[in-house]
Amino acid sequence: MNLFILDYPDRRPLHMKLYNQLKEQILTEKLPPGAKLPSVRQLAAELAVSRNTVDYAYAQLCTEGFIYSKSRSGYYVSSLEQECKVRPSSPPVGLIRERINAQKNFEFDFHPASLSPESFPDKLWRKLTAESLSEKSEQFTAYCDPQGELDLRLQIQGYLERFRGVSCSPEQIVICSGLQDSLAVIAQLLQAEHASLAVENPGHWLPGTVFQRYAFTVHSVPVQPDGLDLDCLQQTASTVVYITPSHQFPFGYVMPVEKRLKLIQWMEHTGGVIIEDDYDSELRYHGKPIPALQGLYPEGGIIYVGTFAKVLSPALRVSYMVLPDALLPHYHQLFRQYAPAVSLLEQKTLYHFMMQGYWERHLRTMRTRYKRKHDALLQAVQHYFGSRASILGQGAGLHIVLKLIDCPFSEPELIRRAEDQLVRLFPVSETYSGGNPEAHIMLGFGRMNPEQLEKGVARLAHAWLDDKEYCSPE
Amino acid sequence: MNLFILDYPDRRPLHMKLYNQLKEQILTEKLPPGAKLPSVRQLAAELAVSRNTVDYAYAQLCTEGFIYSKSRSGYYVSSLEQECKVRPSSPPVGLIRERINAQKNFEFDFHPASLSPESFPDKLWRKLTAESLSEKSEQFTAYCDPQGELDLRLQIQGYLERFRGVSCSPEQIVICSGLQDSLAVIAQLLQAEHASLAVENPGHWLPGTVFQRYAFTVHSVPVQPDGLDLDCLQQTASTVVYITPSHQFPFGYVMPVEKRLKLIQWMEHTGGVIIEDDYDSELRYHGKPIPALQGLYPEGGIIYVGTFAKVLSPALRVSYMVLPDALLPHYHQLFRQYAPAVSLLEQKTLYHFMMQGYWERHLRTMRTRYKRKHDALLQAVQHYFGSRASILGQGAGLHIVLKLIDCPFSEPELIRRAEDQLVRLFPVSETYSGGNPEAHIMLGFGRMNPEQLEKGVARLAHAWLDDKEYCSPE
Repeated sequence: MNLFILDYPDRRPLHMKLYNQLKEQILTEKLPPGAKLPSVRQLAAELAVSRNTVDYAYAQLCTEGFIYSKSRSGYYVSSLEQECKVRPSSPPVGLIRERINAQKNFEFDFHPASLSPESFPDKLWRKLTAESLSEKSEQFTAYCDPQGELDLRLQIQGYLERFRGVSCSPEQIVICSGLQDSLAVIAQLLQAEHASLAVENPGHWLPGTVFQRYAFTVHSVPVQPDGLDLDCLQQTASTVVYITPSHQFPFGYVMPVEKRLKLIQWMEHTGGVIIEDDYDSELRYHGKPIPALQGLYPEGGIIYVGTFAKVLSPALRVSYMVLPDALLPHYHQLFRQYAPAVSLLEQKTLYHFMMQGYWERHLRTMRTRYKRKHDALLQAVQHYFGSRASILGQGAGLHIVLKLIDCPFSEPELIRRAEDQLVRLFPVSETYSGGNPEAHIMLGFGRMNPEQLEKGVARLAHAWLDDKEYCSPE
Repeated sequence: MNLFILDYPDRRPLHMKLYNQLKEQILTEKLPPGAKLPSVRQLAAELAVSRNTVDYAYAQLCTEGFIYSKSRSGYYVSSLEQECKVRPSSPPVGLIRERINAQKNFEFDFHPASLSPESFPDKLWRKLTAESLSEKSEQFTAYCDPQGELDLRLQIQGYLERFRGVSCSPEQIVICSGLQDSLAVIAQLLQAEHASLAVENPGHWLPGTVFQRYAFTVHSVPVQPDGLDLDCLQQTASTVVYITPSHQFPFGYVMPVEKRLKLIQWMEHTGGVIIEDDYDSELRYHGKPIPALQGLYPEGGIIYVGTFAKVLSPALRVSYMVLPDALLPHYHQLFRQYAPAVSLLEQKTLYHFMMQGYWERHLRTMRTRYKRKHDALLQAVQHYFGSRASILGQGAGLHIVLKLIDCPFSEPELIRRAEDQLVRLFPVSETYSGGNPEAHIMLGFGRMNPEQLEKGVARLAHAWLDDKEYCSPE
C-alpha cells in the first residue's frame, strides 16, 4: 500500500483527504478488489493521525460501497466492475483569466448595445435593495409567482400604457430574464399551432436561432425603409412574424402606421401572430417615441416584448412581455408549475425603482445623455467623413449605421483595419441572412463619451480613408 | 370636430393627451380619412393651450403616419385601411390580489421544497449586495459572460470538489437560473445527437416536460430501492437518462456505487449521457453526504446539475451545472452569443457569500436546523400513526414520504380530508407516470417548526385515522 500524503495544501479536513486518496487507489485498482485494508489502528499509526480520522474515512467508503467490513476480520475493497480513470487536475486559472483579459485591449469600443459606463444608479440600487430585503424575508425561502411579482407587473403595465401606448392588464405581463427567455417561452406557446417564423433580413440573429431549436422553420423577409416587405411575408406562408417596428434593427427604420395596419390585417387573415420587439423604443432623440404596434390592436394576436437592458442595465437580466388574452390559458397550462426566471430580489428592487418614480427620471436622464453622444457622433462622422459616408438609423437607440461611399474595402477588411487601430467594431453582415451586399458598419455610441467618440471616428477615418486605395478622385 | 378634454386627471403632458385623443378619433374614424385638421393656431386658441402643444402633437402624428401635411394647405388625416377597436380598460387589480390571497389560508403547509421561513440571511445579503455594488459599477452597463462570472464559477468548483466529490474545472461550469434553465440548455446541447430521454418513475415531472418541448421522446423507467431499473433503461433504447442518485425524488433512495458503475458502463456502451441532479445532496442528517456520481468518472458523459434553491433560497433563482469536456465546444458554439441567465448582481453577491466562507457556514447551520425538524416530524408520525404508517426516504432532504398501512382512502381523498383541516399536502401521484398505486403522501418539513410539525401531524391523524372507515381491527 502506498504512503498517503496528507499534507498537500488544500483546505479539506484530514479524513476527507484520506477518503479521497483511498477512493482514488480503489478506482485505479492500486488497491485491487478483495484487498484487505490496514486496520484502523495500524493506518492511524502509520500516518500519524488520530484513529477518528481513519474511522471516518473508512465509514464513508463503506457507506458508498467502495469497501466492506467483515466481522472480526477488517475492511476489504469491494469488487467494482469497471475501471474508472482518474481526472487530471484543473487547468490553471491564471491562464483562463489571461485569455479573458486579452479580449479587452481596445481603446475605442463601438459596441451597439453597451450603455454609458457611469450610468448605472449603484447607490440608489443599494438603497432599494436594502429596502426590498427588509420586507418579509420569508418570501426568499419559497418559490414565487412563475409569471413574476404582481406589484412589478402593475408598475410595468402603467409604464407601458403611459409611455408606449401599450394597452394590457397586469395579468398579460410576464417577467422574463431577457429576449432569449421571452422568445423561448413564446416558441413553446406557439409550437402547437405554428411551425414557421418570419424574421427581418437584415435583423437580429436571436429570434431565428431560438425558434429553430424549437423545430420552427425560419424565413428571412427583406426589410425596406418602411419596414418588412409584406408581399414577401405572405409568400413565406409563415404564420408568426418577429419585427422591430419602432426602431428596426440594425437600420433604425420606423414602420409607418399604414404598414402597421396592413400587418395587422395580415395577422387577422392568416390567424397569425406578431412578435413586436420594442427593444430600445424609449431612446428617441427627436420628437416623441413611436407608440407600440400593440396599442393599435390590443385584442389581436400581438405579443409585445420589451426590456430594461438598453436604458437601465443589460447585466441585471430583466425583461418583460405582454401576451394577448387569447394565449393566457395555454401559457398558464404550460408554465404554471415553472419557477420564475428572475430573482425575487431583483424584481422587488425594480418594483421600488419604478414605484418611487426613479425609472421615469432615469429614462429622461439617459435620453438626454445619449442624445448628446448621438449628436457628437454624427458631428464627428460629418467632420471626418464628409461626403464619403452617409448615416442610417439616426435619431434613436444606441447605434447608427455608417454607409461608406465608394468604399474599396470589404466589411471584414474594414473591421480588421479598425482593430489594427485598436477600435472595436461590430459587423452589420451578421444581421444579414445571405451576406451584407454593401460596406455598412454599426457604430454604437452608448459606451464612449463625446470626446472619445470624436477620437474614435478620427481613428476610423485614419484607418480607412488615408489608404491610397481609397484616395480616388471624387 | 369634437372638443378635446385636456384636463382629465392623468400625469401625461398636454401634448400627449392631445396626441392620444387625435389618434383615437382617427382610428375610430370620427376623423375620417382625408379630413382636414384645424390649423395649429386655430386649435391652440380653441383649447386655450400653447401653439407648441399642438405643434408637438401634430408632428408626432405625422411621424407615425396618422396625418400628413400638404405644403401651404395644412394637415390631413391619412387613409388607413383598417378600423381598430378600442380596448376596454384593465381588469380591477383588487380582484387579482384577492384571488391570489385566497390560495394562502392553510394553517399547516407540508410543501416539499419550502425552506425555513426565517432562514434567509437577509442582513448579510444586504451587506454583500452593497459590497458587490461598490465594485466597478460600469460592469452593470454591459453584457457579461454568458456562462456566468468566472469568480463565482471558481467558488462553485472548489465547493463541488470539496463537498460533493465533483471533479471539474471552472470552464466546465455554467451558471443557470434553476433546473428548468439547466435542462433547456442541456436539451439544446443534446438534440443534434440524441432523440430520447429516460426519466425516473416516480420522479420529477420537469425533465420530461422540458425535453418534450425540444422534441425528445420521453421514457419512464421504474425506480427500485437501489435506483433506476437498468434492464428497463436498456430496453427503452434511450441514450440520455436523468437521475437523482444521491436522494431519489420522491422516495429518497440512494444509488449504491455498484449500480452507479453499471450505469457508467451503460453510458460507455451506448455513447449515452447521464444527467445527474444532485438537488438536495447537502442535506443529509446521518453520516456524510453521498459524493456525486460525476466524481466516479469525470471524463465521461455525465452532466452534473446542482442548485442553491434547497439550502439558500428558491426565490433567488441561481443554479449551476457541470458539463463534460466533450460537450464544451458545442456549448460554446450554441450559447457564446447568448446573454447570461442570471443577474450579475446576484452572481457577485453569491460569489462574496461563498468566498467569505458564509456559504459553508450557512450549510452547516441549515443542516442542523433541518435535522431537528426532520427528527420532530419522524417522532410525531411515530407517535400519532404508530404501526399505521411507515416512512420512506428519511435521513435527508426536505421531505419524507408517508406510506399508510391498510388505508381505505385514495390519495385525492387523503388530500381533500387534510385540506378540510387546513393542512396543505402535495400528491406523490404527480411524480408517477401512470398513477400512484399506493397511498403515499409527501410530507415536507422545511417550512414549519418542530411544534407546528407535531400539530400538523396530529391534525392529519385526526383527519384520517378518526374516521370510522379506518377503524378496522389491527
